[in-house]
Amino acid sequence: MNDVIKKYPRPDADLLARYADQQPATLHEAMGKRGALDNDFRPAWFGTHVCGAALTVHCRPGDNLMLHKAVSIARPGDVLVVSVDGFTEAGIWGEIVTVAAMEKGICGIVTDGGVRDTMPIHALGFPMFSRGISMKGTTKATPGTINHPIVIGGVLVRPGDIVIGDNDGVVVVPLAEAESMLAAGIAREKSEAAVMERIRNGESTMDILGFQAAYDKLGLKED
Amino acid sequence: MNDVIKKYPRPDADLLARYADQQPATLHEAMGKRGALDNDFRPAWFGTHVCGAALTVHCRPGDNLMLHKAVSIARPGDVLVVSVDGFTEAGIWGEIVTVAAMEKGICGIVTDGGVRDTMPIHALGFPMFSRGISMKGTTKATPGTINHPIVIGGVLVRPGDIVIGDNDGVVVVPLAEAESMLAAGIAREKSEAAVMERIRNGESTMDILGFQAAYDKLGLKED
Amino acid sequence: MNDVIKKYPRPDADLLARYADQQPATLHEAMGKRGALDNDFRPAWFGTHVCGAALTVHCRPGDNLMLHKAVSIARPGDVLVVSVDGFTEAGIWGEIVTVAAMEKGICGIVTDGGVRDTMPIHALGFPMFSRGISMKGTTKATPGTINHPIVIGGVLVRPGDIVIGDNDGVVVVPLAEAESMLAAGIAREKSEAAVMERIRNGESTMDILGFQAAYDKLGLKED
Amino acid sequence: MNDVIKKYPRPDADLLARYADQQPATLHEAMGKRGALDNDFRPAWFGTHVCGAALTVHCRPGDNLMLHKAVSIARPGDVLVVSVDGFTEAGIWGEIVTVAAMEKGICGIVTDGGVRDTMPIHALGFPMFSRGISMKGTTKATPGTINHPIVIGGVLVRPGDIVIGDNDGVVVVPLAEAESMLAAGIAREKSEAAVMERIRNGESTMDILGFQAAYDKLGLKED
Amino acid sequence: MNDVIKKYPRPDADLLARYADQQPATLHEAMGKRGALDNDFRPAWFGTHVCGAALTVHCRPGDNLMLHKAVSIARPGDVLVVSVDGFTEAGIWGEIVTVAAMEKGICGIVTDGGVRDTMPIHALGFPMFSRGISMKGTTKATPGTINHPIVIGGVLVRPGDIVIGDNDGVVVVPLAEAESMLAAGIAREKSEAAVMERIRNGESTMDILGFQAAYDKLGLKED
Amino acid sequence: MNDVIKKYPRPDADLLARYADQQPATLHEAMGKRGALDNDFRPAWFGTHVCGAALTVHCRPGDNLMLHKAVSIARPGDVLVVSVDGFTEAGIWGEIVTVAAMEKGICGIVTDGGVRDTMPIHALGFPMFSRGISMKGTTKATPGTINHPIVIGGVLVRPGDIVIGDNDGVVVVPLAEAESMLAAGIAREKSEAAVMERIRNGESTMDILGFQAAYDKLGLKED
Repeated sequence: MNDVIKKYPRPDADLLARYADQQPATLHEAMGKRGALDNDFRPAWFGTHVCGAALTVHCRPGDNLMLHKAVSIARPGDVLVVSVDGFTEAGIWGEIVTVAAMEKGICGIVTDGGVRDTMPIHALGFPMFSRGISMKGTTKATPGTINHPIVIGGVLVRPGDIVIGDNDGVVVVPLAEAESMLAAGIAREKSEAAVMERIRNGESTMDILGFQAAYDKLGLKED
Repeated sequence: MNDVIKKYPRPDADLLARYADQQPATLHEAMGKRGALDNDFRPAWFGTHVCGAALTVHCRPGDNLMLHKAVSIARPGDVLVVSVDGFTEAGIWGEIVTVAAMEKGICGIVTDGGVRDTMPIHALGFPMFSRGISMKGTTKATPGTINHPIVIGGVLVRPGDIVIGDNDGVVVVPLAEAESMLAAGIAREKSEAAVMERIRNGESTMDILGFQAAYDKLGLKED
Repeated sequence: MNDVIKKYPRPDADLLARYADQQPATLHEAMGKRGALDNDFRPAWFGTHVCGAALTVHCRPGDNLMLHKAVSIARPGDVLVVSVDGFTEAGIWGEIVTVAAMEKGICGIVTDGGVRDTMPIHALGFPMFSRGISMKGTTKATPGTINHPIVIGGVLVRPGDIVIGDNDGVVVVPLAEAESMLAAGIAREKSEAAVMERIRNGESTMDILGFQAAYDKLGLKED
Repeated sequence: MNDVIKKYPRPDADLLARYADQQPATLHEAMGKRGALDNDFRPAWFGTHVCGAALTVHCRPGDNLMLHKAVSIARPGDVLVVSVDGFTEAGIWGEIVTVAAMEKGICGIVTDGGVRDTMPIHALGFPMFSRGISMKGTTKATPGTINHPIVIGGVLVRPGDIVIGDNDGVVVVPLAEAESMLAAGIAREKSEAAVMERIRNGESTMDILGFQAAYDKLGLKED
Repeated sequence: MNDVIKKYPRPDADLLARYADQQPATLHEAMGKRGALDNDFRPAWFGTHVCGAALTVHCRPGDNLMLHKAVSIARPGDVLVVSVDGFTEAGIWGEIVTVAAMEKGICGIVTDGGVRDTMPIHALGFPMFSRGISMKGTTKATPGTINHPIVIGGVLVRPGDIVIGDNDGVVVVPLAEAESMLAAGIAREKSEAAVMERIRNGESTMDILGFQAAYDKLGLKED
Repeated sequence: MNDVIKKYPRPDADLLARYADQQPATLHEAMGKRGALDNDFRPAWFGTHVCGAALTVHCRPGDNLMLHKAVSIARPGDVLVVSVDGFTEAGIWGEIVTVAAMEKGICGIVTDGGVRDTMPIHALGFPMFSRGISMKGTTKATPGTINHPIVIGGVLVRPGDIVIGDNDGVVVVPLAEAESMLAAGIAREKSEAAVMERIRNGESTMDILGFQAAYDKLGLKED
């Protein structure tokens, strides 16, 4: 396999646009409780939201050469999904490369490492999800891969998968399932809205969602 | 003992109202440095504040059936205090159950697990204190207890205890001590205000608070 | 050596003023990737910024007597840099001592322990960087040192060193290198601004920063 | 309440003797999945085993004065159960106090802090369960409690409760339930032996333990 | 896809036998630094070694019903690879199911959760690799999958992959690459033996392994 | 400063020999509670002991080129003290470099990263203290320093300092204080032996060590 892959199936702008207002938690449920990265992936600030197509990068810890390469070949709508083997004591992403990324139309970054320059990047409005914030510098000396499938946050991510993140964290929808999961997500959202309407009208989740039956089966004793 | 307990001593609305503007840190000190949950219980956003009567729930990790049951029997002024054995890779609390809880007059939730739907719940203004934020889904299949005494965050909490939380974390005042501790808290607050006044007038904490004597006893050398 | 040291080389107000608008990440790079504390030192709220002269304190875990002593001998422009051997289950810093510190002209605190009273201190606008937030109380009974060199967050800090912190964390510039590092930091900032200008004009970081050469040496294969 | 309590219900030597060969995991199950400390309480070496009556101590972090006091009032068969608010960067227990404890007939120590002198104590054969091993020294300056109920490892422990530990960790049986739980533990052990016998004769746990029915209810699909 | 899969490509006994004396670290290198689980997967005791064919199981946290099912369909030479979403505060594996597993010819277990009954299982000699040891009990109520691909310890594992573990941790070789990677592993072992022979004859790793050239390129200064 | 330093003050063989049977915990106390590395530095197996002269190395995370260089210039009696910025998901030390180190008379390694090949190295008897065990491989591409002062485990270590480790962890004695601290350590050992003798003769640590006076001052109440 080539180290750097540029040709891979990728969602078109229309599909990404239709995903733009989806909530990660709803999609995770719609997929049958799949696709959510571990809960230590956090947005750099409250209110961050991202939606785009995964451009996957695997760097060595503390080295971001491949990340600069990745930016150079990125396309509008891409979200960088970057594993540095979980090393958080370096900021692999900063202001300069953010400016470069925004020029390319990159939508955000998700990484198991650290990011830095959080104040100027906040001013730029570029979404970052990471496992830490670190100002420590990087080398640019070691090889890696671009657009190979990678495991990050306990999830297998392929290039072109759809990445959606907000304050709840990040979920990844496999591209092949993008249409069906979008439909499932929208359906779930509607059904949840209906449930909330019924709750506001005085019904209980125990009844609406069928939990009473599950509860009764347990045979618990009440006073 | 019954698994689900509905009858237990509980603070009345007046007592809760008088606690509403108390600070957790002050109460912790007034109680003789007791009652504070461990410091990994964090509010879901800066500025969160909660005050209410503990409704305790013990669920299995990743299962929130008992939590839905608990909401169904809650009373206005209750705060859910929920142990899931510390499992943070699931969001046991979300938007739907928040709507249900607010209908019931529940004031907030404190849990050693994870919560989700943080953006819509932020919009609803429902206080959440947890050890993590996770979008991952739950089962509704396993038994637990409601309103048994539970240990959470290193503190024994009984149903009806008073729960107060803010950005410093969460403290629990045993119901039996509620009046005396409220008085102690208010007294301490006044005394602290007086101390700060004296500091602003140029005095040192070493003198005001008697630390100079403690310091002198240590016999340290200064240049 | 005396336990408490009051005489040590210290930056003057002018030097501190010239450091005031420096970014920690830039200084860290300008120093050759040195001086940054570990990434678990976080500001108590988004947007915190600090700049001052290190007044170093070593306390026992959960005891802040020496910290009160330190405040009593501090000078305007000091930043408290406080090791409690990493114990975060106590708030060694709170509102009262903040008021005392601000009276003294102290600019902020950096500690490997916990802080509390975060809401009133936020209102006061006093910068705090810590490894945790805990309301739990302290004793005032055990000895420590003031203005000895200490290791904190993986960095050796001497009294009088320059401490700069923002949302990226905290960096420490040795006083002896303060002028040269300030110059290096300013130079780096300018050069980074120029790089960002070129990026906005369509150039790639691979070319501007010489990464293409490093990349080519790796001999990776592309499709 | 007195700070130091010497009179409390305590198991007699016969009861302790009958508990001596019980397994913690079996007792935990026999109690309805209660009593087990969190899994970061580990024996200092493989093969450690302890059984005795809880003598509870609460010290400040990094200070073991109350622990020396506790040893001075201990009785044969006691196990020290010591909270230092979870601070592991100090060894609150070492060779000297081990010698003193063994003279008193103390059976072992369980602590949420650190221990040291592990090689000489291994030679002495004194059981230690802790959350860390640290050589760092302690102060002897701050107050605490002896034989108050304490919460440690997520469990409420009262003086006189029965403490049993092995390589699986530590479990605590409330004294008031000691006889019934011992009987339940022994019964469970026998039933487990019978189950294992049936397994060795070719039966499946799915059938013997009734899991097949639970499994069938889930309606899963098999190929 | 079926929830429980019994038909999948699987290594034969001969292939497993040839892998039996391979070292995980060597295989990891031979695969191009792939396949190693994260370093918090530890053997339950020093000297543990395992080699077998992955039988993958995904359970809910704290529930091991699917694990009992998995044992019931296992074949000789299988190693259970079990994700419980990383929940370590329950022992999903104990003595009874070990006896059942050994009857089936199962070679060991690798899990991101906890195990218990470590002393009797040590006596039985059944290899366990886990992220924790916990005596806490489990439910048997929730669904899961058997022999689906799972991500565990940062690695995608498919049923039938080859699992090798020792005190260095656990590595997984994709079945499709089993022959080529075994050859590469054996070749690497030989080459490493030759390198060590040369070192014992006085040569330096800098020269033998070509590191001197890499070092010289860095242009570092020596005294 | 040169990147690689070969000339620095170093303890002679006689001094190291006199340190050989010292206990780390005793030296830490003799130094006034200084010099102990944080408690997550653990020996690779129970019973490990090391004593030697620090040869300090700073590598990038996951890269051990400088470590090979360090071995090539080491002298008999050296102990490698290696910071990789705390990255434990790579084994920076393995069997081949152990063989090379033993040829050079190197006594052991202390690192904040990971080590591998633990079984063959156990057979070779080479002491390793680390923060993790990982089989994952390294690059050999990035620069670092040799024999600069480094901060590791919260301690400033200079080349030539004396490093002593056992199952309690690792302590570092500054070379300049080596003679006085050895004397203090030996004195403390004698005094501790005398204390233990008195304990065996029935005295209490409260009396022998003067803790009764400290205790009395606290004014605690006993029943």
